[in-house]
This record gives sequence, C-alpha cells and structure tokens, in this order.
Amino acid sequence: MKGFQKLTSADEALQKWLSVLKISCPSQVTIPVTEALNRVSAADVIAQEDLPRFDKSAVDGYALRAEDTIGASQFKPITFSITESNTIAQGQARQIWTGNPLPEGADAVVMLENTQLRDGKLEVWVQLAKGGNVSKKGEDVKKGEKIIAAGTRLTPYHLALLAALGHSTVKVAEKPRIGILATGNELIEAGAEPSESQIFESNRVMLSALCRELGAEPVDFGIAKDELSEITGKLRAALQKYDAVITSGGTSVGGFDLVPEAVNSLGKPGVIAHGIAMRPAMPTALAAVEGKPVLILSGNPVAAAIGFEVFGRPLICRLLGTPQMEQRPAVNAVMARRVATALGRKTFVRVCVTRKNEAYFAEPISARGSGAISTMTRSNGFVIVPENREGIAEGENVLVHLFGSVEEER
Amino acid sequence: MKGFQKLTSADEALQKWLSVLKISCPSQVTIPVTEALNRVSAADVIAQEDLPRFDKSAVDGYALRAEDTIGASQFKPITFSITESNTIAQGQARQIWTGNPLPEGADAVVMLENTQLRDGKLEVWVQLAKGGNVSKKGEDVKKGEKIIAAGTRLTPYHLALLAALGHSTVKVAEKPRIGILATGNELIEAGAEPSESQIFESNRVMLSALCRELGAEPVDFGIAKDELSEITGKLRAALQKYDAVITSGGTSVGGFDLVPEAVNSLGKPGVIAHGIAMRPAMPTALAAVEGKPVLILSGNPVAAAIGFEVFGRPLICRLLGTPQMEQRPAVNAVMARRVATALGRKTFVRVCVTRKNEAYFAEPISARGSGAISTMTRSNGFVIVPENREGIAEGENVLVHLFGSVEEER
Repeated sequence: MKGFQKLTSADEALQKWLSVLKISCPSQVTIPVTEALNRVSAADVIAQEDLPRFDKSAVDGYALRAEDTIGASQFKPITFSITESNTIAQGQARQIWTGNPLPEGADAVVMLENTQLRDGKLEVWVQLAKGGNVSKKGEDVKKGEKIIAAGTRLTPYHLALLAALGHSTVKVAEKPRIGILATGNELIEAGAEPSESQIFESNRVMLSALCRELGAEPVDFGIAKDELSEITGKLRAALQKYDAVITSGGTSVGGFDLVPEAVNSLGKPGVIAHGIAMRPAMPTALAAVEGKPVLILSGNPVAAAIGFEVFGRPLICRLLGTPQMEQRPAVNAVMARRVATALGRKTFVRVCVTRKNEAYFAEPISARGSGAISTMTRSNGFVIVPENREGIAEGENVLVHLFGSVEEER
Repeated sequence: MKGFQKLTSADEALQKWLSVLKISCPSQVTIPVTEALNRVSAADVIAQEDLPRFDKSAVDGYALRAEDTIGASQFKPITFSITESNTIAQGQARQIWTGNPLPEGADAVVMLENTQLRDGKLEVWVQLAKGGNVSKKGEDVKKGEKIIAAGTRLTPYHLALLAALGHSTVKVAEKPRIGILATGNELIEAGAEPSESQIFESNRVMLSALCRELGAEPVDFGIAKDELSEITGKLRAALQKYDAVITSGGTSVGGFDLVPEAVNSLGKPGVIAHGIAMRPAMPTALAAVEGKPVLILSGNPVAAAIGFEVFGRPLICRLLGTPQMEQRPAVNAVMARRVATALGRKTFVRVCVTRKNEAYFAEPISARGSGAISTMTRSNGFVIVPENREGIAEGENVLVHLFGSVEEER
C-alpha cells in the first residue's frame, strides 16, 4: 500500500510482457476482397500470372510498327494504310482502344490525337519509340512475384491489385476479440442520471474505438464495482472467451485497487510489471493469465489513452500478426514553447500541430489537470520525451506522433 | 476527337467544380456515441455542465487542509486526526479515493503512499499546496464551452469526452452515398474466367474503399459496356438516388469514351472541365447534373487513384460538411533520387518513405508503366511537384502525403 517500490521502464516492461504472452499465428479467414479494407493479410499472396496478361494499348489510337514512324512530324506526316488484320505488316496501322491486346507485329501505339484520317489512309504526326504507349505483359507484376506479404494491412490499393490479378477473396487474420472492462464504485453509464458524487464512465468507449481503429473487435464487459469477486468473475469470463482483456481503473495502490489482485488470482504469471516509469500512465500494470494478455490501465482517461498507445497498440499488432509494430504517422515539427518534464519518466507531451507553408509547428497543450480528456481533443499528437531528458526547449525540432488531422495555417 | 483543346489546372478545375455543385448541409442523424468513431459531427456540442462536476480527488489518499501540512517531511511528519465527517476542520484528515468529491473544508489530498497510520492517527510526510492532487470542478471543461465543433471528425478521444459529459448519443452527418460505376467492354469481374483479351476490373473496389475510409457509403453500379444507352441508364439511376457518382474509364478522347457524353445528356451544366493539367489523371473530367456531382475518372488504376485524391477527397469532405479539406498526414522527407517531371503538369510522384532515426527519406518508385497499380502498393505516399517545376533534385526536401505506414530502418 505504499506506492510502487520500483518503476519499470516502458520499453523493458513491453518487451517482458510480450515475451510471456502465448500468441500463436492468428486464425485465418477468407473474405471477399470488397470487405478487406484495413484487414491484415494472413498469408503471402503470389501472382499466378503476369499483369498485364498481354501487351496492351495504354491509349486509344492505332497499333503500328515504331520503325515505320521514323521521321514523322506535324510538318511531315507519314501515311499508313489501315488494316483490320490481327497481324500488322510494314506501313500498316490498326485502330485500337485502351486495354486492347496489341496485334501481332505491332510494337507501339500512336495516340488518336496525333493522327488524322485522310482519304481512307492514316496520317501519323509523331515518331514513336518501340513500346511507345504499350503496357508490356508483366510490367506491373510478374508471375510468381509476391504481391502482398503476410501481415500487410490492406489499403484500397492492395484491394485493387488483388482484383486486377483476378482475386475475389483474400485470406486475412481474424479480428482479435478484446474484452473491455471498467472498474470503480463512482462510475455510471453515460446517459444515466448521476448522483452528487458519481462520474460518467468514459474509458470503455474510447478503448473500444482504439481497438476498432486497429482492426480488433472490442467486447464490452461493462462497469464492475470495486469488489474482488465481481472483478474476478468478469475477468475470468472475458479471459475464457476472448483473446485479451483491457481494464481501466483500480490499478494504483489504493485500498480499492483490486484489478491486479484479481488477475493474480486467476493464473500464472499474473502481473509482471506494475508501475511504469512514464507520465502519464505510471500506474499501468501488464499481466498474463496462462499466456493470455491483460492490460491494466489507469482510470484516468488521459493515462488510459497513453497507456493504450504504449502497450495496447503493439499488443493488437502482435495479435494480428503484423511483423512490425505499426506506428501512428509522425511529423517533424518545431516546438513553439518550452516544456518541462521529469527526469526518469518517459513523458508524453500532448501538442497541437499546425502546418504553415511546408513547415510544422507544435504547440504544447496546457494540461489543466492530467485527467483532462479535453487535452486529447484539443491536441492532435504527442511528443515523447525520453527518460534522460528534462524537457523540450522552445524551437527544438521534435517528432510528433499524430492522432488527429493537421490544419493548414494561412 | 483530337485530344484536349486546353488543359485546366487542377486547383482551378476543383474550385470551378465545387462552385457549381449544389450541396446543402448534410442530413443529421442521431446515433449512439459507441458507434460514432470516424463519423463527422453535424452540430456544435456545448457542455451542459462543468467537467468534473465537482472538486474531486485525483489520487487515493486523505483529504485535508493544505495549510495544515506546512513543514511536513519524511523526517518531521505532521500528525492528523482521522474523521469520517463531511466537513474537515483544522488538523483533520478523511480517507478519500480517486474520483470522490472533496469534503467541505478540505483543499488538498495527500497520497496514501505519503502517509502512515499510527495509533489511530495519520502521519503525513509531505507538504501540500492548495489544490494538490485535486481535480478542480470545471478544470477539464467549463459549462457552456464548445467541446466539439460541427464538422469535426470524431476520434476515440471525442467519444470519451462526450461520454464523460454524460452523452450517450451524438448528432452526426449522414454518410453520403456515392454510386460507383466502371465502364469498358474489355472488363470482367475479378473471380470470373477471362478470355484472351479481357481484363479484371479493379477500380470499383479501390474507389469504394477510398470512399469508405472517408466515411462515405459506396453503392456499386457494376461494369457498363461502352454503349451510350447503358452508361446513361446507370448514371441516371445513380443520380436519382444517391449524392454523387464516381465513374472510371471512358473519359479520354477515343471513340468509346462515352461517359462525358452520357453525363451531358442528363442535365445542366454537365461536364465543366475535361483534361486537367496533371500527371497522372490528365483525362479526368468534372461534371454536375442539376447540381449533383459526377467525378469521371480515368480507367487507368493509378490515374483513378490520384484523380480521387485530388477531386474525390475534397468532394466527400464537402458532402460531409467538414469545414476544411481534410488532408492525408504528411511528412517532410529528403528525396533519395532525382525525378524529372513535365513543366505545366502538376505531377504526383509516388515514393516509398522510410524513417531512419528521426529523419525521413523518400525513394521514388519507378513507374514500370503509368497504369501499374503495384506502384501504389510498393509506395506509401506521393509528392506533388507543382506545374512550374521540372522535377525534384536528389537531396531536396519534399512534403510527402502518406497513404501507407512508414517503416523504421535500423
């Protein structure tokens, strides 16, 4: 009951935690490509054929032999005879539309706008190189090429590439299911009528949304009272059925901080780090029950948000099988004001980044109080100040991890 | 049939297009906060009360009067009597848990770990300032404060803030519904068995996913043959029912490029720009039918992707009522290689950005062919080279607009 005996560094705690977790390859599920946005591929995808499958025209125009156009110009057009044959001979041209296969013998396509029909003949005004306006067989993708690696998060462009190679389905990792539980006698659901001393619970909706953004499926376990049996029961139910559990509240060193105790009663190894050398989110605890992850976050909304960034995000990446930890986008910015931080704590400074011309400026958001969730909506990113620094100087260049969009200042 | 008489600059075309569109405020719909991630708020949200609603303890410990702790230290603790009263008098302390309202008379909370119980009395080892470990009423949000502006895209933190203020629902803009149509005789659906000259259609899945990412609802109109009546019929059906239409294919100057013609037949003003001074996506056309937007993209997958970035993205922002155009995240990077671009064309150079330490490097992705969709999966962003530049020098500092995650190089 006397505070944390020893704080663990955030990096060390994360590594230790990930090493005790028993996370197997995620289950695979085959789904339509049309529904695969933002899902994570569960297997390498190898091209079964060339893309394009044949030499095709990249424009609307006439297929011909490039060497026949040598010397052609707007002042000295060269005249071709028009054919409908599938084979192009010297001096011949055949009309062709974008995407059509090149007829045999042709090795270039002249664009419609560089030609004129005159007396049933075609005048060509430009000289073409071999391969001009032709998409060569296999120029996009070669048969046998790995087009998507396992663990890739699928963008709209991956979906297009899959479709272009004829795939209507794709194997993706099943969404990990994460039980979300809040604890605290003082908490009630938003929308209910609070008594004088009650507080609206706001962490579950945030943590659920953060899980969803990363492609996990949150499962709501509601609010537990500060009672060991109730917390233990809900944790047991969540751990039996789901891939991980994230809790908020009940994790500092007070009398009602029962979550670590409840987790320890459920199985080995239990809590493996409690008290992290960071600010906010110092009271975060990391635990595992028979290899299943339990992330025990502070009830303080900002601490819960940052604790999720540091531990929840890499956990979900691991559950999804992405080979590297996916980071939020980050920009280099100039710090607009000095910020002091505590030595020995990895500190997450919330900032509001704006862009002016092509440069970025980061304005630290005054805390008002470390529990103030509005600091997360008034900011759009955070700067990480390492343990061995006592702050950031005005004008210093910093890396800002972005969680909101950046406005252009004019 | 002789190419574009005149190209319009991308910025000018966009402004002209947006000015002819008749886009009213988006319809509002009230939804649960738990489902509002990434939706756009349709109205300002004003705090109806302070947050916190009362002075509350930020820690587990004892509420007391700060002035009574003056001079306390680990070597010279000050002793308090413990009370259960709702009013704290001089020399008294009352146990309190995180989130509990402060009892009257108290103005600070000493953390549990800075105290010791001895013979029914409380020894306090630290000196506290007034307000120490107290979250003051209204310190997060003041009653009457605008906590969310209309047009804000809701992050997990906005959802938490709404919940913290007791909201279980929120008014958001209805998802704009966008008809998506591909045209081309050569196209077949992915998964089907292609003949020698057929090509798998891949733009609809990409454009649908791009719409979805921004919070619009795509509606699939399939593949139309290059026949005026079929294209016109599908466009008419889409425009009657939905908020906008995006097409791909049939927009250059060939004989089968019937989409602009079909749009013009459906109503005024029809096509207002065709042929944009950009690369790729030059054959893009912008149109409106009785004020409803039609975005006519090239069938070339990369051109369709970039055309969507430049015109589709701001269109959807406008439909959703976001007051500013939302940009992709962007980073400053050093160009790893020289790239040549054409004067007079706004050029979108695909690059792969990596991070090394805290600096970013952009490697241009060789085109292989401008239609190559794999250039979008091998890159993670693009650099915009303005019309008045002929390229980017090696080592030049550029702004990269990111559409994929950035890997850390070690």
